[in-house]
Amino acid sequence: MPYNIADPGRDINDLIVRAAKVFKEKQGIDVRTGYSVESIHISNKTVSGATLERGRFHFPYDKLLIATGAAPIIPELPGFDLPGVLALKLLEDGRKMKQFIQEHKVGKTVILGMGYIAMEMCEALKATGIDVKMIKPRTTFIPWMNQDLAAVVKQEIEGNGVRVHLGQNVRRIEKTDKGLKVVCTDTAFDCEMVLVAVGIRPRSEAAEAAGLALGPEKSISVDKTLLTSNDDVYAAGDCADAYHVVTGQKTWIPLALRANRAGWAVADNVMGARTELQGVAGTAVYKVFGLQVARTGLSMREAEKFGFEPSEVVIQTRSRAHAHPGASTLYVQMVGDRKSGRLLGAQMVGREGAAHRINAPAVALHAAMTVEEFSQTDLAYAPPFGPSWDPMLTAANQLLKEMKL
Amino acid sequence: MPYNIADPGRDINDLIVRAAKVFKEKQGIDVRTGYSVESIHISNKTVSGATLERGRFHFPYDKLLIATGAAPIIPELPGFDLPGVLALKLLEDGRKMKQFIQEHKVGKTVILGMGYIAMEMCEALKATGIDVKMIKPRTTFIPWMNQDLAAVVKQEIEGNGVRVHLGQNVRRIEKTDKGLKVVCTDTAFDCEMVLVAVGIRPRSEAAEAAGLALGPEKSISVDKTLLTSNDDVYAAGDCADAYHVVTGQKTWIPLALRANRAGWAVADNVMGARTELQGVAGTAVYKVFGLQVARTGLSMREAEKFGFEPSEVVIQTRSRAHAHPGASTLYVQMVGDRKSGRLLGAQMVGREGAAHRINAPAVALHAAMTVEEFSQTDLAYAPPFGPSWDPMLTAANQLLKEMKL
Repeated sequence: MPYNIADPGRDINDLIVRAAKVFKEKQGIDVRTGYSVESIHISNKTVSGATLERGRFHFPYDKLLIATGAAPIIPELPGFDLPGVLALKLLEDGRKMKQFIQEHKVGKTVILGMGYIAMEMCEALKATGIDVKMIKPRTTFIPWMNQDLAAVVKQEIEGNGVRVHLGQNVRRIEKTDKGLKVVCTDTAFDCEMVLVAVGIRPRSEAAEAAGLALGPEKSISVDKTLLTSNDDVYAAGDCADAYHVVTGQKTWIPLALRANRAGWAVADNVMGARTELQGVAGTAVYKVFGLQVARTGLSMREAEKFGFEPSEVVIQTRSRAHAHPGASTLYVQMVGDRKSGRLLGAQMVGREGAAHRINAPAVALHAAMTVEEFSQTDLAYAPPFGPSWDPMLTAANQLLKEMKL
Repeated sequence: MPYNIADPGRDINDLIVRAAKVFKEKQGIDVRTGYSVESIHISNKTVSGATLERGRFHFPYDKLLIATGAAPIIPELPGFDLPGVLALKLLEDGRKMKQFIQEHKVGKTVILGMGYIAMEMCEALKATGIDVKMIKPRTTFIPWMNQDLAAVVKQEIEGNGVRVHLGQNVRRIEKTDKGLKVVCTDTAFDCEMVLVAVGIRPRSEAAEAAGLALGPEKSISVDKTLLTSNDDVYAAGDCADAYHVVTGQKTWIPLALRANRAGWAVADNVMGARTELQGVAGTAVYKVFGLQVARTGLSMREAEKFGFEPSEVVIQTRSRAHAHPGASTLYVQMVGDRKSGRLLGAQMVGREGAAHRINAPAVALHAAMTVEEFSQTDLAYAPPFGPSWDPMLTAANQLLKEMKL
């Protein structure tokens, strides 16, 4: 949606991959929209709720899949229900935002939060000529990221004219003559639109009420076959948890690939196959202005939290070979465990070569490789694409030395 | 060198990372240039040969490293010693070529061969406005590559005005009034310069004469510590062989990373450490005009040759997500072994996203992953960088189905 919003000429409906009626007409799937499930009754295998037009409903099931996704967190503070205070999760949210920007000729926006959605949206809004300020209560910019790399991201955002305000606690949003005022403890920001991007939460209320086991952050707990604590109920997508391939423990990292993959696995398993998903590595990437920002595995703090004895390095290399024109700086961070020697995670920031490079350490995490093993891998080299020692190998070599100290 | 040659304004000396005198002055290393070693006497641990200015020499050694690299193969046919018939291996070759192009105002070139160097040079020469024809005797364009992908590369080269002549056996090169004539069995090509890029061979003559064991294609056989068949003689770089991590057998794949890595390992081992190199996966990438061409592991034919029962898929996807502007086509080939389930290799061709993506299957080959394990990896997704299922995962999923047939 951010990339669609960035281009006022594009229709938000371009993003629809398959309309509800296509399921019905081409695949014979009985899709019922406008049915809000309120309760899951696992004792008699039914779901019940209310429709928009046809009153209440009760449906029996043989197997049930809960794929309710996640919902944006909206702070319970005054003014968050005002027009122009918007979140971005459903297609309707995107439609509403595009309409609001056009109808109110929005010139100034405040983004609450600095996560993936906030980052992509700050670029998107700037692309349409809208002024953007970003606000968050904590004083650390991108807390999961090595702060040398985070500083590079911050500089890129500020260099593109976005003002970043850390340590600002929002108290309320007020309606003014000209639009909105975001009132913080010490200061206030005028704007015409507020994007609330402070985080998301799994939509697991009905599952919880039905007594299904919950995992991290109240996501629905599932095994490797996506089965919940009830033998006839599956959960998949942003509402469900997953095993982390590095820690071996449950985690909640709601991202597109896992959601999609889990859906397919449930289809297999409902039909009698036994498809097990090994888990997630927390691999993610986003683009913000000219930068590619990528991560996989554990940050230093996460590694410490899960009982590892982590060492960390950050290296700074050129994105192309010695003397090759057009090079830019590529930053690579890498974390390893001094006890086991294992590679635990990596982060990268650069103008080129970060987004796809991150997949190599991601694969290494799935294989539980040591840093030494990863440092021995035969990676590709040509002058337009990097130095003869790929930056990831240079980082691994440095990390090996660091881990021996 | 191709990228330097592409820019007549750049000095070839820009490519010198460290001059001989720097070794001497800053590191206390006694570098002797102009000393040509003719014989290695392993019985009394000496090397002997001739210098340019100081007569013959005999040097004793405690430990010897042979790092003689590779030499271009020059066909033993008439006219290959004519001025303007050039190879490209040493820095002096590049210097000579830049000079020749400038002094003779070269307008037309013939490249013999279609390997990595030929590909990079056809782009480089076209960049300086020189007409390029490529000639090879075999009728298959890039034999190691899946021919669907090879066709994409051929189209790119021809689309940029390079004429590709397959199945042309060169008989001789003749001097003409205007320059050179490359005479083939049925036809002939006029030009002012010929680049001989038909392959390289390890410079192992002295090692062979000394009785050291040789490996594939007469490369010098070394163990994982880079030791030759003699306990006091190491070999590293393009003259030495390596273990292939997929086949477990010896191979000769002379590429920069392995050469550099082997040099460092020898330094460790001579100094009393024990550094073992695990081996190579044959990972390589090059750019040719707008295309990135990448490979790792085994081709179908190599897989068959080494006793695997390979299956292969080729998929064609977009380089960016659904509805994301600026996307181009990305081709991914993947090979798996029906017997063991193992991933054996991958090839990729595309305008973006091939060069760094190839590192992920390369790591998987080092970890001896199955196709099923690779298909489960958590790879990065954001709309500017690919679809939510990375093309490599789509290829792996298709390959899994193919392997079960």
